[in-house]
Amino acid sequence: MNEAEFDKKIFEIHQAGKITVTNKIPLETRDDLSMAYTPGVGKPCMAINADVSRAYELTIKSNTVAIVSDGTAVLGLGDIGPEAAMPVMEGKAMLFKSFGDVDAFPICLDTKDPQAIIDTCKYIAPTFGGINLEDISAPRCFEIEDTLKKELDIPVFHDDQHGTAVVVLAALINALKIIDKKMEDLKVVVLGVGAAGVACSKMLMASGVTQIIGCDRKGIIHEGRAENMNYMKDWFAENTNPDVIQGGMEDAIKGADLFLGLSGPGLFKREWIELMDRDPVLFAMANPVPEIMPEEAAGKARIMATGRSDFPNQINNVLCFPGLFRGALNVRASDINEEMKMAAARAIAESVSDEELCEDCIVPSVFSETVKERVPKYVAEAAISSGVARSS
Amino acid sequence: MNEAEFDKKIFEIHQAGKITVTNKIPLETRDDLSMAYTPGVGKPCMAINADVSRAYELTIKSNTVAIVSDGTAVLGLGDIGPEAAMPVMEGKAMLFKSFGDVDAFPICLDTKDPQAIIDTCKYIAPTFGGINLEDISAPRCFEIEDTLKKELDIPVFHDDQHGTAVVVLAALINALKIIDKKMEDLKVVVLGVGAAGVACSKMLMASGVTQIIGCDRKGIIHEGRAENMNYMKDWFAENTNPDVIQGGMEDAIKGADLFLGLSGPGLFKREWIELMDRDPVLFAMANPVPEIMPEEAAGKARIMATGRSDFPNQINNVLCFPGLFRGALNVRASDINEEMKMAAARAIAESVSDEELCEDCIVPSVFSETVKERVPKYVAEAAISSGVARSS
Repeated sequence: MNEAEFDKKIFEIHQAGKITVTNKIPLETRDDLSMAYTPGVGKPCMAINADVSRAYELTIKSNTVAIVSDGTAVLGLGDIGPEAAMPVMEGKAMLFKSFGDVDAFPICLDTKDPQAIIDTCKYIAPTFGGINLEDISAPRCFEIEDTLKKELDIPVFHDDQHGTAVVVLAALINALKIIDKKMEDLKVVVLGVGAAGVACSKMLMASGVTQIIGCDRKGIIHEGRAENMNYMKDWFAENTNPDVIQGGMEDAIKGADLFLGLSGPGLFKREWIELMDRDPVLFAMANPVPEIMPEEAAGKARIMATGRSDFPNQINNVLCFPGLFRGALNVRASDINEEMKMAAARAIAESVSDEELCEDCIVPSVFSETVKERVPKYVAEAAISSGVARSS
Repeated sequence: MNEAEFDKKIFEIHQAGKITVTNKIPLETRDDLSMAYTPGVGKPCMAINADVSRAYELTIKSNTVAIVSDGTAVLGLGDIGPEAAMPVMEGKAMLFKSFGDVDAFPICLDTKDPQAIIDTCKYIAPTFGGINLEDISAPRCFEIEDTLKKELDIPVFHDDQHGTAVVVLAALINALKIIDKKMEDLKVVVLGVGAAGVACSKMLMASGVTQIIGCDRKGIIHEGRAENMNYMKDWFAENTNPDVIQGGMEDAIKGADLFLGLSGPGLFKREWIELMDRDPVLFAMANPVPEIMPEEAAGKARIMATGRSDFPNQINNVLCFPGLFRGALNVRASDINEEMKMAAARAIAESVSDEELCEDCIVPSVFSETVKERVPKYVAEAAISSGVARSS
């Protein structure tokens, strides 16, 4: 297909949307009607009324996730509004189904007010076994997720933050096997200090990394920096860069083991690789054009990963969220906690076998059957051992 | 099946719910992924961002209805809560699919506050082409529906009110053909003056009926009655009973042509039929046990209808709502207005052929293919001619 044909095909497959609601049982006779609807339906209704936990048994709740977005931070497209966000959310629902056998339904909201988004999620919660927050701009996404995690008894997960963090950690676990370094000894430079940058840094720190330096276009984020700060940068200033290193990217990257790009196209210079420690690892995740293209880093970087499907080592959230929710739903988890995210990262990393593992294969394929089986299993086990599972 | 087997079967078919979300296109290759999701999905997103009406073309909006309930007035079960209401709403979604090819998704709300329900519907509206309000108790249902109809540009329809009214009118249109009476000349007694009673009375009045008398267990509702009144009864006092008839059911029913029961089991006495005009028509709709059983009325009533599937003349909302929404969605209607409801009633009535029409066949079967075709057609035509269609 050339580009024009590809575009035409894209619009064709989007006609009237990409998902549909299907009946699981027939409705062909009067008996069918009187069991699935009135009067028979009154019996499961009253059973749930007597014991609300039976909603997990007798309704779609046990397998259904709401994909909630306000359309303010969609892909690299920005604040495009709730209607325009729908194709992404429908696509996400498709991924949930194909890769996790989860019934996910998009709910795009005509409000940007954090409290209204929180309230809406709380009101619609009875229908759902989990809420996947998607493409909500920072810093509102933090407040919304934190509040909902406290106030709801179903898992709430902002995929743009944590899905990325889980897969980055999985990729790093495998990269370290190749270059034979330890989490504790790493120096990591994060370019792009938004919501995903905070989430990745938190997961790396929880895995043992102590030296993280965040950078924006103005340079290093450090304690005492006053200009061009915001909610996320304040977090970086307070929680990373313990030696209060100051300066630009050149100063940050000196001796670094991992460059983690979550910023924009072409922002990482080839010559900076030479300033890094032995066996430099680059995760250049800006999409669709990474901070540095693999061909430019070739011969200098030991390991290179991007967000793209047309290069090796694609760091793609779809490795995480379908199986993570699958595992959470399987044990009726009340939360998706740190233990479960860590378990998902381990499961993804271990889905690359010792035989497969090499510089160009630190991340499994998005179509990996091992990932599909292992992520739910590890996540469910972590939910049970950490005490948030309500069944097993 | 005996009753125990039937109950067992009911719980079996409800395991993990009755509907599922299905992908309309395959997700098996990298090309599939890059068209349905990133980066290809960005193109339809930006097309909608440039022209929001294209959401009807490029997302599920054009075929998707939210079934919104707070679980406060579910079937005859009352205020059983949002989780316990889910089996009914899932059943409703199945009916939407089977009888209207509409994708409907249940949204059960954890709030009873009318303003919160209104706000939630407004916030979630971008995803949907229509909202079916369901099993919300009166008088809150009036305020919620009225406000949403004004403030949203998609159809909002409270089925418990209007669905019932449409099918009652359809049944009455056909009954009058048999007994050869005119709407203008009828005296109608309505027992049970709740939300459905108000909606039925409004539709009958819009069809030419002038003599309606509402009754509750205390007797006739009339201007000046002070005790045991509420929002709906005030409406009856102000808008019906023009001759200010007072007294009990015996006084109301004298010379009546139609008894419309929307109340409770066994509340209509056999001897009252003898007080009615020639060819008495009884619509005894209390469910599952009607105001009077057909065998009791036999030989006295000329025409008898109930809400039950095991007697002739089942007045069932499923004859209306799937086709009504189908027609509205087909022309991207911004509202479901009086003209469209009237058209649905005509379509249902006309789906009983002259050959079929008789005392035991004033209402078509819920499985009627004619209803399935004719209701959307008539409704879409009415939407166009009344100016609420945005495509044709």
